[in-house]
Amino acid sequence: MPIDRIAIFGTGLIGASVGLALRSHGYAGSIAGWDPNHDEAVIAQGKGAITSIASDSIAAARESQLILLCGPVFTILEWLDRLAPVLQSGQLITDVGSVKSVICEHAGVRYGLVHTAGFLPGHPMAGKEVSGAVNADATLFDGAAWLFTETAESRAMHSASRAVADEWRGWTMKFGCRVIDLDPARHDVLCAWVSHLPQYLSTSLSALFEDEFPEKDEMLAVGGRALREMTRLGGSPFSMWRDIAHTNTTAIADALFALEQRLAHLRENLKTPALREEFEHANRFRASMSPDRNG
Amino acid sequence: MPIDRIAIFGTGLIGASVGLALRSHGYAGSIAGWDPNHDEAVIAQGKGAITSIASDSIAAARESQLILLCGPVFTILEWLDRLAPVLQSGQLITDVGSVKSVICEHAGVRYGLVHTAGFLPGHPMAGKEVSGAVNADATLFDGAAWLFTETAESRAMHSASRAVADEWRGWTMKFGCRVIDLDPARHDVLCAWVSHLPQYLSTSLSALFEDEFPEKDEMLAVGGRALREMTRLGGSPFSMWRDIAHTNTTAIADALFALEQRLAHLRENLKTPALREEFEHANRFRASMSPDRNG
Repeated sequence: MPIDRIAIFGTGLIGASVGLALRSHGYAGSIAGWDPNHDEAVIAQGKGAITSIASDSIAAARESQLILLCGPVFTILEWLDRLAPVLQSGQLITDVGSVKSVICEHAGVRYGLVHTAGFLPGHPMAGKEVSGAVNADATLFDGAAWLFTETAESRAMHSASRAVADEWRGWTMKFGCRVIDLDPARHDVLCAWVSHLPQYLSTSLSALFEDEFPEKDEMLAVGGRALREMTRLGGSPFSMWRDIAHTNTTAIADALFALEQRLAHLRENLKTPALREEFEHANRFRASMSPDRNG
Repeated sequence: MPIDRIAIFGTGLIGASVGLALRSHGYAGSIAGWDPNHDEAVIAQGKGAITSIASDSIAAARESQLILLCGPVFTILEWLDRLAPVLQSGQLITDVGSVKSVICEHAGVRYGLVHTAGFLPGHPMAGKEVSGAVNADATLFDGAAWLFTETAESRAMHSASRAVADEWRGWTMKFGCRVIDLDPARHDVLCAWVSHLPQYLSTSLSALFEDEFPEKDEMLAVGGRALREMTRLGGSPFSMWRDIAHTNTTAIADALFALEQRLAHLRENLKTPALREEFEHANRFRASMSPDRNG
């Protein structure tokens, strides 16, 4: 029996984009939306990302086969707590949380028992530096990776929940995603490098410019694509990245420290042959990206 | 008498793009091209960026009203040396060099005398992470800043050279550039921040990924836009950036050191309220960019 009753908790950028992607790929069932900020749900409904606004989130979850949790990490932990006792086997919770070890540990055995809902830990590697349903986009996930980090506990889910999980994986492929399975700890280390480091770096760089140039007109007039591009993620919201900093701290700190050392090395070698080596390593890294990843 | 004889020294990405931009904005005169790598001149001619390949660079310069120097900083210094004794008043040299103090000092009084050619120090804030005439583009300068850094010496140029200089400034405006006049030292500090820092940062980050991930498949499969964007400039060629590192060392080292400190501050505050402040500063910086600068 294919999925035709979905609830989306958190109808901001990611949640509303999922709703739009479902619609544009032929999903014809219901999508109940709930958001702590009611306005977000109204915007999502206005864009056609959800078919109804849930007034009672628990009731909406009870009535759905698939419950998609779209929020910052700590919010997802809270929803996992609230939903565990009210759902049952055959139902599936999946999420889009950015740090997976803490979420998988928190879900623990509560979602892998014969009478409980299943939990499929997920994470689409897509986003924007702007948030909110107003920026939602049916094509947001096209070409991105959608990561899943199943554990022994999640694999023990009831077969009826498993059927929903398999169908959901199929939907993410329809959205145009590469589906990749990873261990949660490996996921968190990889994301510390490819996602969290670029984010905190861009935040630091943007904050540095803000303080270094109280009068910005001349600097902004002179700056070109390099400045715009390297600071784009500086627009990202704190709310989401606070939770990531709190829950993937060690891996992020390690990556930041490695970059600090690398920058110091380059700075100390601006006039030595070691600068050439840095450019050669960097050139090799870029050459290893396939053309469709060079954009 | 409008410019109708131009020589371009260095027909790579920037030189050939200037030729194409001139053509696409109605320039109907001759463009003699010369490049230390003959293949580059052949490609530039094949794209229509130059009308002829000069076999004798000095002769080509002698026959032109405007000589455009497009190369790494040290190459421009060398050309300035070679051309000073063979040109005369009424002719104008202009350049696209990335560091202006050293170039303006080098040109010195040799180009501001009554019997000498004039020198107009210029710098378009446009480029790509890939080099060569093959990547040249008539629209490369559209929407970019074209900086000029005149000095007391350059302002003393002969009135016939000045007429060529004024016409050249007009051409850069036709290319779609914002023309901005700056003091050379101020130029170098501003560019250390908005251009050189982003470049060396992206090189460091790319080199770090190259060393951290000897096996790249998994990491590249997981990575998304943030990774691609923050490492794009890692593809930039060493040849150009070596000269910049050698000639704007102090300003670049200062900016790099400031970023290292800022990253350490963020790393030490991943779980404190100071993280919020960094995001607020970064968000303010991005908000100060006008929408057309947010791309």
